[in-house]
Amino acid sequence: MFDRINKHVLKHVSLSKEEIALFNSLLEFKKMPKKTMLLHEGDVCNFEAFINRGCIRNYYIDEHGAEVTLQFAIEDWWVSDIASFHTHAPSNMFIETMEECELLVLSPQTKEALLTKVPKLERMFRLMVQKNLTVLQKRFLNTITTTAQEKYIDFLYRYPSIPQRVAQHYIASYLGISAEFLSKVRTKLAKK
Amino acid sequence: MFDRINKHVLKHVSLSKEEIALFNSLLEFKKMPKKTMLLHEGDVCNFEAFINRGCIRNYYIDEHGAEVTLQFAIEDWWVSDIASFHTHAPSNMFIETMEECELLVLSPQTKEALLTKVPKLERMFRLMVQKNLTVLQKRFLNTITTTAQEKYIDFLYRYPSIPQRVAQHYIASYLGISAEFLSKVRTKLAKK
Repeated sequence: MFDRINKHVLKHVSLSKEEIALFNSLLEFKKMPKKTMLLHEGDVCNFEAFINRGCIRNYYIDEHGAEVTLQFAIEDWWVSDIASFHTHAPSNMFIETMEECELLVLSPQTKEALLTKVPKLERMFRLMVQKNLTVLQKRFLNTITTTAQEKYIDFLYRYPSIPQRVAQHYIASYLGISAEFLSKVRTKLAKK
Repeated sequence: MFDRINKHVLKHVSLSKEEIALFNSLLEFKKMPKKTMLLHEGDVCNFEAFINRGCIRNYYIDEHGAEVTLQFAIEDWWVSDIASFHTHAPSNMFIETMEECELLVLSPQTKEALLTKVPKLERMFRLMVQKNLTVLQKRFLNTITTTAQEKYIDFLYRYPSIPQRVAQHYIASYLGISAEFLSKVRTKLAKK
């Protein structure tokens, strides 16, 4: 159950057997069916979850009531609304499973206990947040500077497995275009 | 010279006198005139700078050649393109001083040396990246879900001192509206 997460962590920091055992003992294993809402807008996010298996997306609702997908996450990603998780403020986003998922979950309490006992893990969490920040920065830049086709090509580059795993309209809502327009972009690209 | 940064760091972690001295010895002090470009699009960002005094903004150029301000930063903020800084990839953004600035600067090398010698500082940098991620998440959400007036009120709440420190059109480029429209929003708010 802990093979994948331990391999992931050991890429970033070296831990003793005792530290790994402590880390694993603080993780809660959760199996979630497809289409489970893990977080609702207005609720406080009380989890930081490592995806052992599955696919998850987080999204906002815009002023027209449309869903705007902020991020997809698959195996080896951590999922949370980190702002809400750390400040206990209500979240602005929704987090939903796209497939049946196996998650390894930390709560604010277990994360704090973990970092107190194994401060070396600060580094792993810093690198993880940095990765998230990098992705979001690119996401933001893409919304303002590239064409739909460029956005889709960049999306395929960063998320090669997602088109096989989620319905088209979710990808459209990530790219900020309609499903019909995405279909046109795909047809155009297929002809090239 | 180090009063402000040491106070800032000690809010997040407790350090011994020796650790503080080591930290300070690795910081490079730089004084920059107003309107200095600290980073150009296409260059690798080789600094993470604590603002001891001054105001800085980072921005992108969109597909119409217009500047889109991503963030303003003032005293007690760290400024960098963290993605470029850590991956050594060329940056997509510009970073420019809005006022004369005093900066305390880490390079990728001095940051790594610092974290190797004082791993406790991982926590401070993690919290700092989290804060940045939170701000960017809100920034992103604001671009898609709120009216210009709501955006401006939120901006005033988060950056109360900025309107006195930078020209209107920079604020407009942060809000994603024209300077004329911002002027109308301000007039409307002033009447309330």
